[in-house]
Amino acid sequence: MFGKRNLVSITRITSTQGLIPRINCPVRFCSAKTVALTAEMYSNEVSRNAKYKKLEDKDLSFFRDVLKDENYLITNEQDLEFYNEDWMRKYKGQSQLVLKPKTTQQVSEILKYCNNEKLAVVPQGGNTGLVGGSIPVFDEIIVSLSNMNKIRSFDNVSGILKCDAGVILENADNFLAENGYIFPLDLGSKGSCQVGGVCATNAGGLRLLRYGSLHGTVLGLETVLPDGTIYSSMAALRKDNTGYDFKQLLIGSEGTLGVITGVSILCPSRPVSTNVAFLAVSSYEIVQKVFVGARKELSEILSSFEFMDGKSQLLTGHYLKSEHPIESGEYPFYVLIETSGSNRDHDIEKLETFLANAMEEGLVDDGIIAQDEAQAKSLWSWRESIPEASTHAGGTYKYDVSIPLNDIYGLVEAAEEKLNGANLVDLDASDKPVVGCIGFGHLGDGNLHLHVCVREYNKEVEKTLEPFVYEWIKEKKGSISAEHGLGFQKKNYIGYSKTDVEIQLIKDIKNHYDPNGIMNPYKYV
Amino acid sequence: MFGKRNLVSITRITSTQGLIPRINCPVRFCSAKTVALTAEMYSNEVSRNAKYKKLEDKDLSFFRDVLKDENYLITNEQDLEFYNEDWMRKYKGQSQLVLKPKTTQQVSEILKYCNNEKLAVVPQGGNTGLVGGSIPVFDEIIVSLSNMNKIRSFDNVSGILKCDAGVILENADNFLAENGYIFPLDLGSKGSCQVGGVCATNAGGLRLLRYGSLHGTVLGLETVLPDGTIYSSMAALRKDNTGYDFKQLLIGSEGTLGVITGVSILCPSRPVSTNVAFLAVSSYEIVQKVFVGARKELSEILSSFEFMDGKSQLLTGHYLKSEHPIESGEYPFYVLIETSGSNRDHDIEKLETFLANAMEEGLVDDGIIAQDEAQAKSLWSWRESIPEASTHAGGTYKYDVSIPLNDIYGLVEAAEEKLNGANLVDLDASDKPVVGCIGFGHLGDGNLHLHVCVREYNKEVEKTLEPFVYEWIKEKKGSISAEHGLGFQKKNYIGYSKTDVEIQLIKDIKNHYDPNGIMNPYKYV
Repeated sequence: MFGKRNLVSITRITSTQGLIPRINCPVRFCSAKTVALTAEMYSNEVSRNAKYKKLEDKDLSFFRDVLKDENYLITNEQDLEFYNEDWMRKYKGQSQLVLKPKTTQQVSEILKYCNNEKLAVVPQGGNTGLVGGSIPVFDEIIVSLSNMNKIRSFDNVSGILKCDAGVILENADNFLAENGYIFPLDLGSKGSCQVGGVCATNAGGLRLLRYGSLHGTVLGLETVLPDGTIYSSMAALRKDNTGYDFKQLLIGSEGTLGVITGVSILCPSRPVSTNVAFLAVSSYEIVQKVFVGARKELSEILSSFEFMDGKSQLLTGHYLKSEHPIESGEYPFYVLIETSGSNRDHDIEKLETFLANAMEEGLVDDGIIAQDEAQAKSLWSWRESIPEASTHAGGTYKYDVSIPLNDIYGLVEAAEEKLNGANLVDLDASDKPVVGCIGFGHLGDGNLHLHVCVREYNKEVEKTLEPFVYEWIKEKKGSISAEHGLGFQKKNYIGYSKTDVEIQLIKDIKNHYDPNGIMNPYKYV
Repeated sequence: MFGKRNLVSITRITSTQGLIPRINCPVRFCSAKTVALTAEMYSNEVSRNAKYKKLEDKDLSFFRDVLKDENYLITNEQDLEFYNEDWMRKYKGQSQLVLKPKTTQQVSEILKYCNNEKLAVVPQGGNTGLVGGSIPVFDEIIVSLSNMNKIRSFDNVSGILKCDAGVILENADNFLAENGYIFPLDLGSKGSCQVGGVCATNAGGLRLLRYGSLHGTVLGLETVLPDGTIYSSMAALRKDNTGYDFKQLLIGSEGTLGVITGVSILCPSRPVSTNVAFLAVSSYEIVQKVFVGARKELSEILSSFEFMDGKSQLLTGHYLKSEHPIESGEYPFYVLIETSGSNRDHDIEKLETFLANAMEEGLVDDGIIAQDEAQAKSLWSWRESIPEASTHAGGTYKYDVSIPLNDIYGLVEAAEEKLNGANLVDLDASDKPVVGCIGFGHLGDGNLHLHVCVREYNKEVEKTLEPFVYEWIKEKKGSISAEHGLGFQKKNYIGYSKTDVEIQLIKDIKNHYDPNGIMNPYKYV
């Protein structure tokens, strides 16, 4: 099937035996029993700003009046925990109040009040963030969007979806699937993350290569600004050049300029044919060559190009308790290629020609192509389970960076060497804090995820890694956050990616739109 | 070739006889001898703001010192005319000075000085705008970017192009072609318009359908802000989530927030195979059906879907002095479909299957497919020459609007009816000011160009059209400017497309970043 030569090492999966269903929803699987309070863990770096008022009974009364239903306020210690902790169990806040409004008008009344009273606020979507952005640091009030979860409208000719910010990404995509469309973004956490949160963090995800960034696909946002003003550009059509595109500032603002309550987004036709190939490759240099070939030969149907190092697959196999799909040996690198197109025969022909050429050139050592959707999902699970697998020993320090392609994998090697030099690493010995460093990511976007897998979150490990990792990235002219954002974790490191002029402009925007600083304080900038 | 039935009415061009080369460069072909001063034509609406200083000799001395070359200053009346008039011959300013800096540093020194001295400034790129945005209204100083015309760098793996703002779009695209890449935007005016101007106006163009908007593809901008600060995000990689994306405000800001001096943009692989089909269709309703089918069946290879009404083709034929490519009759509507892909056989098969289905369903009455690049260019010329052809009788009132697809063509009919009612229209009689209304545009983007072709610009025609046209658009929830921008022409009509909250935010941004209002005054908002 793969060309003129006898390419036996590329085999096709013929049964789904032993394949694992795709894991969409991040779960609280971390083995750490308790999560340290962020305020205590980082007491040297951050302290509560006295300008913020502490919650009083009269405030609660006001919020009860606005929300009109006791179920939309959470004040119970046990229930609060779910909203105060992040899913990685790395950050923990001390909020005493979660508000779950049902309408944009309620959000407006809440923010207007908080702004007048100087009550700090954290907006929270699906709480699947990776930099502590949606978790309070002290006693900020959490405004959860979970109750705003309705599809508002869908235009079957233009492909424009309008929905509440709290709609779960997977629900939005399932709705679109019924109409022959696809959400132009996909994430491992799609079963939990919300459309509004995705916009607030400018999430990239698995198919940015194909559908582009949210700055291009989001047509309008409805957002409550800190003073309660409801800004809406939800009526926008595909093209509209009448004035500054203010919503663009909200995309990636991580809840620091307001609360996104509605999203209008342009959705592409759902591909009729999706194919997934999983390849074994002998070096990072060859991974790049395979990428250049894939972009050239698969071109308009290439929808993902993900790479993973060998160690990430070992950990994932252990976590999934399963045989690796490529059973013939352990390879230094693996590549997952996805194509999405409108004609199955054409797509298969392109993919097979590409793979045959790659084999002939000696670039690919082994590989498989999924034969049906279940197999495709199973192959994806080997990529999408890496984040969970990497946290399995206790926790993970995650770095999500953009680096020019040539240098990308060098960061993983440099971090491993640095930690080894400090005698902190052992894959098996449980008296060392670090299990190991793994690297994987969206190579098509120049985006590496470096995960330092640890048995516990530990100041010594952190000090060895930071600012070392950020300095390394700066030297290579990369970005310290490709898609995860700044949140709490990277607030102090923005200088490694941005110039002084840029930082000044960013601070100025924050001060201009949120002069009281009530929105998501202690984070971002 | 087109399916099982004998579809004789779809024929293939077999020679290039009679076909016209593509016209890229807007030329001053308008028959009007003189252009009225904008300040006089619109004296009821606009007057010179006394807060701006008038140019003095000491200012000229300063600029001479900065630019260090007498050729970079234009003060000669005759030479100034070229920069004071727009190519449609609709707007004319009275600037006494054009500055043509060579470096970003020079632009910075110029703006800093102008800001301190309260000298008003108009940035000017290729001067191909359609709303008078790059033409002074009174005596504003013109800062032309034409001398900043260097490619700065190109990364052959990532496809990231960095260049000066004054690089002509066609030059950038030719450079990219040599490297196997394509500029992610194409315009009829590509031979004159500049990359910086394209970003400043958030141009859409002919392939937005395929490559998305500049908000998604522009990775970084270098821009001199009104106080002379040089903002640069040129180092940005494909993904970078570290802080508010300030450059997004500059995209589409039409020179009101600063002068764009450099652009970093992500370029896709150049398609190996491009095909163009030109179809005749019997009604606007059927045009929509053809579009829905094309998007479904051509999907990832569909790069343009342009529609044109019959009258636009009559005018274009007259202007090009040529037989229409579909010679078998006059049809109410025509459609130009372009596909771009990586495999010629696959693309042709998809296109032919789609056309065969469309014929079988009775959607398409006649059509041709270009057999080579020259023929493809010739077919494009029937679409790209419409703007020039429409101005041929004397001038054109151009409306560039987004309207939900169902209603799009209704605007052309409504405008024609309104002008007829005022007894202003006659195709042949030269004592009537209006020749006729034509409609064409990027249907794939929901974008209509309504051109009211006139023998002269005339207040009565203008009053009949405005605010009528804008009210009609507002009622259909459209945008009064899909891609041309606001400029001088639409400054007073933004309320038809934006809410009060949106307008307030836009004004606030302008005041915040340009408190002295020196950048491109009397326009935008």
